[in-house]
Amino acid sequence: MKPVSDAVLHSKKSSIRKLFELFLKSTDAISLGIGQPDFQTPENIMNGIRKALDNQKTMYPPALGIDELREAVGEKFRKENSMRWVQKENVMVTVGGSQAIALTFAALTNPGDEILINSPNFLSYYYIPAYYHTNLVEVARNPDYSINFEQLERKITPKTKLLIINSPNNPTGYVLTKNEVEKVVDLVIKHDLYLLSDEVYEKYLYNGRTHISPASLDGVEDRTITINSISKTFSATGLRVGYLAAPADIIPLMEKYAQYTAAGTAHPIQYGAVAGIKNGNPKMAEIIRKYDERRKYSFKRLEELNFDCPIPHGAFYIMPSVKNYAKTGDQFSEDLFNKQKVAVVGGSSFGSFSSDKVRISYATTKENLEKAFERIEKYLEDLK
Amino acid sequence: MKPVSDAVLHSKKSSIRKLFELFLKSTDAISLGIGQPDFQTPENIMNGIRKALDNQKTMYPPALGIDELREAVGEKFRKENSMRWVQKENVMVTVGGSQAIALTFAALTNPGDEILINSPNFLSYYYIPAYYHTNLVEVARNPDYSINFEQLERKITPKTKLLIINSPNNPTGYVLTKNEVEKVVDLVIKHDLYLLSDEVYEKYLYNGRTHISPASLDGVEDRTITINSISKTFSATGLRVGYLAAPADIIPLMEKYAQYTAAGTAHPIQYGAVAGIKNGNPKMAEIIRKYDERRKYSFKRLEELNFDCPIPHGAFYIMPSVKNYAKTGDQFSEDLFNKQKVAVVGGSSFGSFSSDKVRISYATTKENLEKAFERIEKYLEDLK
Repeated sequence: MKPVSDAVLHSKKSSIRKLFELFLKSTDAISLGIGQPDFQTPENIMNGIRKALDNQKTMYPPALGIDELREAVGEKFRKENSMRWVQKENVMVTVGGSQAIALTFAALTNPGDEILINSPNFLSYYYIPAYYHTNLVEVARNPDYSINFEQLERKITPKTKLLIINSPNNPTGYVLTKNEVEKVVDLVIKHDLYLLSDEVYEKYLYNGRTHISPASLDGVEDRTITINSISKTFSATGLRVGYLAAPADIIPLMEKYAQYTAAGTAHPIQYGAVAGIKNGNPKMAEIIRKYDERRKYSFKRLEELNFDCPIPHGAFYIMPSVKNYAKTGDQFSEDLFNKQKVAVVGGSSFGSFSSDKVRISYATTKENLEKAFERIEKYLEDLK
Repeated sequence: MKPVSDAVLHSKKSSIRKLFELFLKSTDAISLGIGQPDFQTPENIMNGIRKALDNQKTMYPPALGIDELREAVGEKFRKENSMRWVQKENVMVTVGGSQAIALTFAALTNPGDEILINSPNFLSYYYIPAYYHTNLVEVARNPDYSINFEQLERKITPKTKLLIINSPNNPTGYVLTKNEVEKVVDLVIKHDLYLLSDEVYEKYLYNGRTHISPASLDGVEDRTITINSISKTFSATGLRVGYLAAPADIIPLMEKYAQYTAAGTAHPIQYGAVAGIKNGNPKMAEIIRKYDERRKYSFKRLEELNFDCPIPHGAFYIMPSVKNYAKTGDQFSEDLFNKQKVAVVGGSSFGSFSSDKVRISYATTKENLEKAFERIEKYLEDLK
């Protein structure tokens, strides 16, 4: 047989899948592994889909998404993200945030281009560049998970095409300050880069932090792709609706590529997304209150257990180092699961600078969290 | 600004979109342009989705698709397509047939590979190869739209990775005979190629023709990707559920790529697809009876109007030459639309060997067809 795709065959592998296969086989395991909120999808979304089904919305949707959704998304970007320049022509609906990232690569990159990210970071950023024959360049975050701007600028070459940021961040929980977003924007303009700003955790903010979309600042409208989705805000990861705002001349490239590689996002579901985006999540304040409590609890427990860990201010992850336990993050994760049936994700899934870390998701009930930390404590005692 | 993606910027453009923009702006136009059946999505599918919504199936589905659907698809391939080797591990659920095609390229090809197709053919095959930096090699069909096997074999080089077939065919309506499918299979084995068999029109057969899946024949199980979807069989183009059967070692490559570029097909919709695939379309016999009548009618009218046209035995398209009217297919399409408001697709959308042709879809009511042919007749009279 002739060789299969080199890029796909050899692309970095995530340790998450292995973990979840183990998790699914186990009966009494607790997962702190998954990036999925634990509340129900709001009824306004569900009813929007039901109504669309009753109206037989089962024929091809436009490749860019239905007008109602593109208009609702435009309004959302203008109002919630202060991106006043966004019109319908700047908006596209995608198959989740994942396809939005892939479309950004499809539209902007050529083989050999360099893609710049701060590591640790979301795992798709480690796979997708290879699929587009581009080269990923990682820059280690500072110990508090902030961006090391000096190092970042040093890694820029004439081949650098795209800088990716993700704030609030998966897996570190780090939230960029206004000053940092301004520095990102300056860097992007100075070096003639495109900027992918992945903002899917924008609503998950604690301790008074605010979310700043770089595309709301001057001078980067023509070089910024802003990505979002209904997955995290509405606990609807399985509905596969994402969306993006991009320069008007980039959208037709994305449309062309998407038309022939996926041909759109499920038509009836888009009507549910309209309802969600127009009205927001009515329970968000309550959810944030709960998540904040879990965040504080998790941080406190990790400190008590002698983990080295910056406190996160966003998303629903916390990323401690396990260095004190003479293990890599992946070993720690596997061992903890085998001995105490708690699932956390080994740091190697998030890039080259987190092999000593694990990612903990606190998007689960307080009761589960408490039980999980009891088991972690037991695990650590048994290690002694 | 730095250059955007060369492959996407310069990929061939379809004339279909332009046509439909015109069509949407017009009030009294008749479309014979669209590849979408004109009956309603069966209630078993709709109710499957409704039930899944009531059961809160809104969380991440497995990247390969839900187990129930993969099992139903496996059973379908074994029973309806005589592909007795297919197990769940050979099956993947996709975002429509379109993503299934893209995933085949993703998993199998490397830049520089050659992709072989018979032209005219489905338009995605002209776009997608460039997105994967592969080279498309077209072989002209015989005048009756059958495969020119001698030419096809002559075009095979050491770089040829993949042969694509699509029977029943869009846009020609040609259906491969058993003997032709055997010749395809022999060729694929002899030259160590992969075979993509796109079978989305398998149910649309007339005049006693039958559909033969090449992967039901001996010796090509390890090199054939069989693609299908619920779009055409169930008139559900907008639900975006496709599926495929592939060698067990290819599925994990597709899974990896799909996981990070789309992360699955809408979860609740997959439950609707289970109901459809398990029970089939209860109205299919009635639909085929109607479509057969429209097919015969369209062919008769085209003959009366002096078009040169092989009779189609499958799908719901018919592709006459407009040579007798001293126009290219694209000119004919544009002129016919401007003067008589009938939309047909110019042949250049379907490859390099159909510039003198147009594609007519008879997936519309008999009444519309009659009106459209009256207008075409009027248009031709005015040309004299």
